[in-house]
Amino acid sequence: MSTSLKTPAYEALAATFQRLHHLQHLQSIAYWDQAANMPPGGSQARGAALAEMAALMHRMRTDPKLRDELARAEQEPLDALQRANLREMQREWRQSNALPESLVQRAQLATSRCEHAWRTQRPANDWAGFVDTFREVLATAREEAALLAEQAGCGRYEALMDRFEPGMTCAQVDRIFGEVRQWLPGLIREVTERQSREPVIAPVGPFPVPAQRVLCEQAMRLLGFDFDAGRLDVSSHPFSGGAPEDVRLTTRYREDEFLVSLMGTIHETGHGRYEQGRPRELLGQPVSLARSMAIHESQSLSFEMQLGRHPGFARLLAPLVRQAFGEQPAFEAGNLHRLVTRVKPGFIRVDADEVTYPAHVILRYEIERPLIEGDIEPEDIPALWDAKMMELLGVDTRGNYRNGPLQDVHWPESLFGYFPCYSLGAMYAAQWFAAMRRALPDLDARIAAGDLAPVFDWLRQHIWLPASRYTTDELAIRASGEALNPAHFKAHLEARYLG
Amino acid sequence: MSTSLKTPAYEALAATFQRLHHLQHLQSIAYWDQAANMPPGGSQARGAALAEMAALMHRMRTDPKLRDELARAEQEPLDALQRANLREMQREWRQSNALPESLVQRAQLATSRCEHAWRTQRPANDWAGFVDTFREVLATAREEAALLAEQAGCGRYEALMDRFEPGMTCAQVDRIFGEVRQWLPGLIREVTERQSREPVIAPVGPFPVPAQRVLCEQAMRLLGFDFDAGRLDVSSHPFSGGAPEDVRLTTRYREDEFLVSLMGTIHETGHGRYEQGRPRELLGQPVSLARSMAIHESQSLSFEMQLGRHPGFARLLAPLVRQAFGEQPAFEAGNLHRLVTRVKPGFIRVDADEVTYPAHVILRYEIERPLIEGDIEPEDIPALWDAKMMELLGVDTRGNYRNGPLQDVHWPESLFGYFPCYSLGAMYAAQWFAAMRRALPDLDARIAAGDLAPVFDWLRQHIWLPASRYTTDELAIRASGEALNPAHFKAHLEARYLG
Repeated sequence: MSTSLKTPAYEALAATFQRLHHLQHLQSIAYWDQAANMPPGGSQARGAALAEMAALMHRMRTDPKLRDELARAEQEPLDALQRANLREMQREWRQSNALPESLVQRAQLATSRCEHAWRTQRPANDWAGFVDTFREVLATAREEAALLAEQAGCGRYEALMDRFEPGMTCAQVDRIFGEVRQWLPGLIREVTERQSREPVIAPVGPFPVPAQRVLCEQAMRLLGFDFDAGRLDVSSHPFSGGAPEDVRLTTRYREDEFLVSLMGTIHETGHGRYEQGRPRELLGQPVSLARSMAIHESQSLSFEMQLGRHPGFARLLAPLVRQAFGEQPAFEAGNLHRLVTRVKPGFIRVDADEVTYPAHVILRYEIERPLIEGDIEPEDIPALWDAKMMELLGVDTRGNYRNGPLQDVHWPESLFGYFPCYSLGAMYAAQWFAAMRRALPDLDARIAAGDLAPVFDWLRQHIWLPASRYTTDELAIRASGEALNPAHFKAHLEARYLG
Repeated sequence: MSTSLKTPAYEALAATFQRLHHLQHLQSIAYWDQAANMPPGGSQARGAALAEMAALMHRMRTDPKLRDELARAEQEPLDALQRANLREMQREWRQSNALPESLVQRAQLATSRCEHAWRTQRPANDWAGFVDTFREVLATAREEAALLAEQAGCGRYEALMDRFEPGMTCAQVDRIFGEVRQWLPGLIREVTERQSREPVIAPVGPFPVPAQRVLCEQAMRLLGFDFDAGRLDVSSHPFSGGAPEDVRLTTRYREDEFLVSLMGTIHETGHGRYEQGRPRELLGQPVSLARSMAIHESQSLSFEMQLGRHPGFARLLAPLVRQAFGEQPAFEAGNLHRLVTRVKPGFIRVDADEVTYPAHVILRYEIERPLIEGDIEPEDIPALWDAKMMELLGVDTRGNYRNGPLQDVHWPESLFGYFPCYSLGAMYAAQWFAAMRRALPDLDARIAAGDLAPVFDWLRQHIWLPASRYTTDELAIRASGEALNPAHFKAHLEARYLG
């Protein structure tokens, strides 16, 4: 950011966001520590400390002087980058200032109560109990949606989705998911039919945790993760946290299985490299932030799905797996690839393969949108869930709330509008690899030969470094010549699973 | 803290200090993480984040309204505990308001940079490189000392020491260390002479790190450390950090040796129990803080020296050591006790036995005091160091910066004035155990029988729960009938090493 006497309001804003960025660093490390290290007795003190910090940062973001500075900065002679930064500042400001403090507090209380209850309701399969606590979460979410929609002049669900995916409309999601709905069930049938004739050798455990950790770290190195600016640890719910200069990835290990933690680590490594690759000279400014959650997922899925389940990549993993656990027939590259591309309709979204995954997301979208818009009530969820699971995946979920609508933490936590990002991310990832293949016709051969640099170079140039400089559509067009086009995702699945 | 409409200023102050306490929690976790986890690339961002936080907390502590509230609270009808809390608030306020924010921030950046550089300079024996980064730390420390001294009307080094040891004067330290200087070299000669005739069996390594970690954690359990509210990790310079509800101890392991990490962990456990034992209902208020750093060290040294090197305690450790590393003649209780009470002049303060330890501290005091007062410059340190090490301990340190002035993190971290606390702490610890023995004539037999509860009960009642309710002198008098009296330390060394 250049400084100039002609842009005093802009400079003041940049300084404020820089300060917020520094405080957020401490907040992120404390969140990571809470998940990875904190002893149980520290929970209350940590909660109070994080609440204090959240309140402090909220006061900074709602300081009345910001409104004035944002208005004055609009009139200042900013260059293109500064103008993009101002646009992102305004976005962050609108989000922080859109909701009255009392509503934010009520929503926090409702979600923390519901999330706490959900932890015991899920294992108890207690749908009736859940509806009781969930009703309040939904009520505050509807209030939030109505306020945000009124301000933005858009639909209520769309207003919630905009927090994660700026610029995405329900019309677009309807069109995209509507298309997928038409070909997905047929594709799943065809793939599972074909795979039923393919023999796969199962790996034989146990897989000692220290060897799994080494394997995961080697995969991260292979994928260019910078251990000078990050680390891998253990937490019960894997995530990517920390700061761009100090990315904290987590995974979890089970001794009887190694592919879940390995592929999960590869997924988080995609998030991690996006964070590590954000433009260093702009860190602290909103324009340096990840573009959207779908774009963030497009990075984790570029790593986990496009690359991690690439037949060439299995050849790179095979020797590492043998090094970790010794020789086994299952560790032959072709068999490893068959293992990680196995398609099987199931109950649980986070365990789904890349072919059935979109069905889970479409189902969530088709339920949470009418829920927010008041067209259905919590009581209506189970019947809808059962019908859609049967229709999309052929799976019978009746009475199985635990592995049905109670499986995700998103609704108890009021994260309405997030689900679509997962599948939009998978579609963007397919679109990025299609663009890479047009630019580099020998891409697949290079990957098989262990030369992953072209992939990283393309992502760095087209996604990581631009960060939030352009809108999502502009970013996609600059990167791949077109806005989001789900045809690439369909083509990718057909090529990989029916090719 | 009771609330009352008659004490509005006091209540407002209490709320402010509670908020500061919450923010300090995040700060402490970030410091611990920096030492225990942070990858090198995260250093700059962490430094900037901690500087931002320090500045923010400094602004809270220097808010002009506090001066007014402190004055008004003086006139309010406070009870004895509230009045003690107000006294500690005033102390904290005076210290914070003596320094301008710009200086605090500069100091934070300088120490962060120097400490980071020191991590590579120390192993590289790079004294010249160190002086380069250290000069800035010293410059800001001298500025701080001058400002604090002017405000307190005392000497500049004394003003820095007061941050750690309120009420302690250079005149007292001169008198106490001057006395020790007279009898210490003779005692060291006498003890080493006597021990040269005592055979000791050396343990045979290697000592695998996982077994050492288990041993250290068992020793911590024996010493009553609450693992529900704390943990043990690894850092290059062991310390006790975190928060009372989440105490973070660190140690470091070497495969060829286990007693250093074990005794170091016992030391940190003393700090940790003091923190865990601070009065819970007062946490967040200054009156709940540790009384002083000498009192803090009196707890670590009560654990490491008084208890950890007690002949009876060796009988409790012996079976744990055998469990960790198998049977060895060296692990017989009597031999273990001889091992941990071996007196041998050496380079490293933290590895020193309790007899030679004060020599290291006197040396640091005699160098850092003139350094702060401008009588010497960083270039002068090595010659002084070499001369004093030869004079006090008969050790040749020429050219060995790594194990000389680069061995401690205190100077890179600008902790000038801290060193005396270590030896004052050893003296207080000897005084506490003398008082315990007067109250419990069978104390030594109880320790040998594995009944450590009387020690913990005495410390809890006399040191942990009173926290900062009384001044240090009052605390010592209430606990032991007299203010600091170094005669107990001399008597302890003579009884244990010449008895």
